[in-house]
Amino acid sequence: MNRKIILYTLGIVCMAESGLMLVPIICALFYQEQEGFAYVFTAGITFILGYALGHKKPENTMFYLKEGCIATALSWIVLSLIGAVPFVLTGEIPYYPDALFETVSGFTTTGASILGNVEALSHCSIMWRSFTHWIGGMGVLVFLLAIIPLSGGSTINLMRAESPGPSVGKFSPHLKQTARVLYLIYVALTVFEFLVLIISGMPFFDAINISFGTAGTGGFAIRNSGFAEYTFAQQWIVTIFMIIFGVNFNFYYLLLVRDIKDALRMEEVKAYFGIIIASTVIITLNILPVYHNVSLAVKDAAFQVGSIITTTGFATTDFNVWPTLSKTILVTLMFIGACAGSTGGGIKVSRIIITLKAFVRESNSYIHPKSVKNVNMDGKPLDENNVRSVNVYMSTFTLIFVISVLLVSIEGRDFTTNFTAVAATINNIGPGLGDVGPASNFESFSTFSKFVMIFDMLFGRLEFFPLIVLFHPTVWKEMHEDIRAAKKRRRIKVSTKVVQKKYEHDAKKM
Amino acid sequence: MNRKIILYTLGIVCMAESGLMLVPIICALFYQEQEGFAYVFTAGITFILGYALGHKKPENTMFYLKEGCIATALSWIVLSLIGAVPFVLTGEIPYYPDALFETVSGFTTTGASILGNVEALSHCSIMWRSFTHWIGGMGVLVFLLAIIPLSGGSTINLMRAESPGPSVGKFSPHLKQTARVLYLIYVALTVFEFLVLIISGMPFFDAINISFGTAGTGGFAIRNSGFAEYTFAQQWIVTIFMIIFGVNFNFYYLLLVRDIKDALRMEEVKAYFGIIIASTVIITLNILPVYHNVSLAVKDAAFQVGSIITTTGFATTDFNVWPTLSKTILVTLMFIGACAGSTGGGIKVSRIIITLKAFVRESNSYIHPKSVKNVNMDGKPLDENNVRSVNVYMSTFTLIFVISVLLVSIEGRDFTTNFTAVAATINNIGPGLGDVGPASNFESFSTFSKFVMIFDMLFGRLEFFPLIVLFHPTVWKEMHEDIRAAKKRRRIKVSTKVVQKKYEHDAKKM
Repeated sequence: MNRKIILYTLGIVCMAESGLMLVPIICALFYQEQEGFAYVFTAGITFILGYALGHKKPENTMFYLKEGCIATALSWIVLSLIGAVPFVLTGEIPYYPDALFETVSGFTTTGASILGNVEALSHCSIMWRSFTHWIGGMGVLVFLLAIIPLSGGSTINLMRAESPGPSVGKFSPHLKQTARVLYLIYVALTVFEFLVLIISGMPFFDAINISFGTAGTGGFAIRNSGFAEYTFAQQWIVTIFMIIFGVNFNFYYLLLVRDIKDALRMEEVKAYFGIIIASTVIITLNILPVYHNVSLAVKDAAFQVGSIITTTGFATTDFNVWPTLSKTILVTLMFIGACAGSTGGGIKVSRIIITLKAFVRESNSYIHPKSVKNVNMDGKPLDENNVRSVNVYMSTFTLIFVISVLLVSIEGRDFTTNFTAVAATINNIGPGLGDVGPASNFESFSTFSKFVMIFDMLFGRLEFFPLIVLFHPTVWKEMHEDIRAAKKRRRIKVSTKVVQKKYEHDAKKM
Repeated sequence: MNRKIILYTLGIVCMAESGLMLVPIICALFYQEQEGFAYVFTAGITFILGYALGHKKPENTMFYLKEGCIATALSWIVLSLIGAVPFVLTGEIPYYPDALFETVSGFTTTGASILGNVEALSHCSIMWRSFTHWIGGMGVLVFLLAIIPLSGGSTINLMRAESPGPSVGKFSPHLKQTARVLYLIYVALTVFEFLVLIISGMPFFDAINISFGTAGTGGFAIRNSGFAEYTFAQQWIVTIFMIIFGVNFNFYYLLLVRDIKDALRMEEVKAYFGIIIASTVIITLNILPVYHNVSLAVKDAAFQVGSIITTTGFATTDFNVWPTLSKTILVTLMFIGACAGSTGGGIKVSRIIITLKAFVRESNSYIHPKSVKNVNMDGKPLDENNVRSVNVYMSTFTLIFVISVLLVSIEGRDFTTNFTAVAATINNIGPGLGDVGPASNFESFSTFSKFVMIFDMLFGRLEFFPLIVLFHPTVWKEMHEDIRAAKKRRRIKVSTKVVQKKYEHDAKKM
């Protein structure tokens, strides 16, 4: 295993994070908040740590899939461990596991919070919280790939480990460029949302935070009331932008290069909009008897559908009190998630489509066993490898989901709470139903359950395998053997030196 | 499509059902109950119907997979439609959809009841209810294959459509014999349980009904208190027999032919017992603080674990009031289900094992992409076809499950009730949690929800594809075209006859 390149990557990640902390630091300067010192201090220490690890590029810069997974998993863990420190230093979230939960929730764009009173935070901490969404949305390593000269073609394994969805897509040959194009689209859309919100009359601080949260499909609210205080128009603006950020970014890329025909052929995008429209219509009809007002009902239904399917998790209303059908639709959307190649989480629409197509093919085979018609996706026959990897993803998802629900249920809360709390974290959404509905938060869970959900958030964001590889016994055995071998080499080197010195000494004597 | 062989099969099934109704008829004679006439009447009509369809064997007796699926699906539907009639005729379940729900629940060995007061039923109706479990457990068509001279090798497609689990197993070459061996084991074990229960002092009527219910892993209780009135020893006896009937019958077959080494190598059976032991231990520890009595806690935990994993659904206690961890374990067991090739339902332990092994193989491939170690099952490498069909099963299961929960949630009950009601019916268990816990029943659901669950029970028992094929648009189109073609042939025949007659008439004239 190439341990050096992993450590080097971690060093770069640390340096990058200290740089990213400039955002809350500037914010603290602007609002003249003492809490800014916590960020200055953390950024300083992190930079020193990062410089120690990452100032010298190792000779061998090869990344295999294994190293890619390990580097990605460790990067996200280190990023979160460090990102949580300022919350503790400022005393705003004094208990470190809580701060870690909040930070992981930020970076993984989950938006599940342990804070009952968000408005009590300093501006710089609110900003840092929202900014972690924005960083996590597109991915830290994708960001690094875009700006930093890492090694050649093998870095695809870093990107593969971090990018959501069944495949990295059409971009793979020109990785660096891809990363840049993706970030460009990402930045442009974020700025666009910010401007539209400003025009709508939203305060500057709110607009910037909410743009970060929407772009990353994160979901941290910055007011205790969530979105209820914003105007009708502002809620619609955010609805539309949430849905925009849930679209596969390949779609925008194809639009950019004016390949509109290919863009419109993307079945995933069509299905995504189809699900949104259908769910909004059904929920509107279902909640209408409670709302007595069509435009309000449509607005809340569309907002909540957009918020949940893109796994953002903003809330304009407490949907915990909605009729069961609407709640069940929302729970279903939690699992479906956004498009692959977007900043959203969940299983991803394309995986659902692939699964459905494999099912259609199978039922056809029962009727005409010998002449199996090929089932197409985006105009090409269904790729068997894709089907297989989707199946593995699904069973891994189910496995981790069931284990997590069992572990969280040790605490003894009701089934709906446990089920939706795990669903909301593993799918990187935020709020669930029952005790974790939009009107409540995750604070009251035990530290043990919080750690289960911290892992669920990371599992969900990294789509399981990077973390599974990191915790795989074989990897630990190899690591252990590597370190022992290195020690042995050093011992041999040392003893050779001793022998040599003795020899020289003896030679002098003679 | 070979429509004639399908109709012939349905005829045989009807005749068989009228024969099976002798059991409640004899019971009615014994207890001198008027309700017996309903069974006599139904059996008579059914026999006439069956004779009309099945008295003449068609020339072409080929069964392809498609015909096998359709015949199986229709057989189960016809069986249930007819089996429900006596309940209405006796006036004991006057509303036909309720009677149908109860009957489907019987044949599919679910054991979900719409009856609040079971003890109000006549003995013969209780007997018929329990007996449907026993018939459904091993399968109606397997039974027919064992006793009736159907066509040659292609009837494997009937058995394949009806047998639970990923593969029919080792028996396939000698189908008739297999069916007989399976039924022999089934009858022997049922009689054995009956005798043990009699020895334990259980009344004759209870012993026979409970033996039927256990053997089919059905779960209809015959007392309003469920199992609470039986003695400690009797509850343990039933626990052990439930677990016995959840074992893959191949295991007993291997024991019979003294191939003990092969029997002990069956990973599914080992995993099945492992899950039972682990779950019982955890639940015991979890409920101990409430029970204050180790032997009581162990007994109830083991009974409930055995009852749920084998998808029987008997209850000695209202586990709805147990701590959440125990309930969540039970919900998990609902989905795992019994061994393939047993009378139990659920996903089946072997499917879970295959999924886990595919997962292990995948995570290995991340670490050593080039040298993938083969993952073994029962000493042989994992069969790729098996993995694929398990995956399709899983996604079909999920699809039908989600749609059903959405449909049932239209009624507006709480999420836990809807989720576990569908889980309990699709996995053929019986009781769930919330409004459908062991202390309540399914009566209060709307007719619409009941029909959703009727289909879920059939889907679960027949493992989806027979019914999916039956409702597949292509099949309906073919059927429609077939019928049109047949009509056309008849018209041509008729017009030929007319022409011929005219010709003869003219000839005579001349």
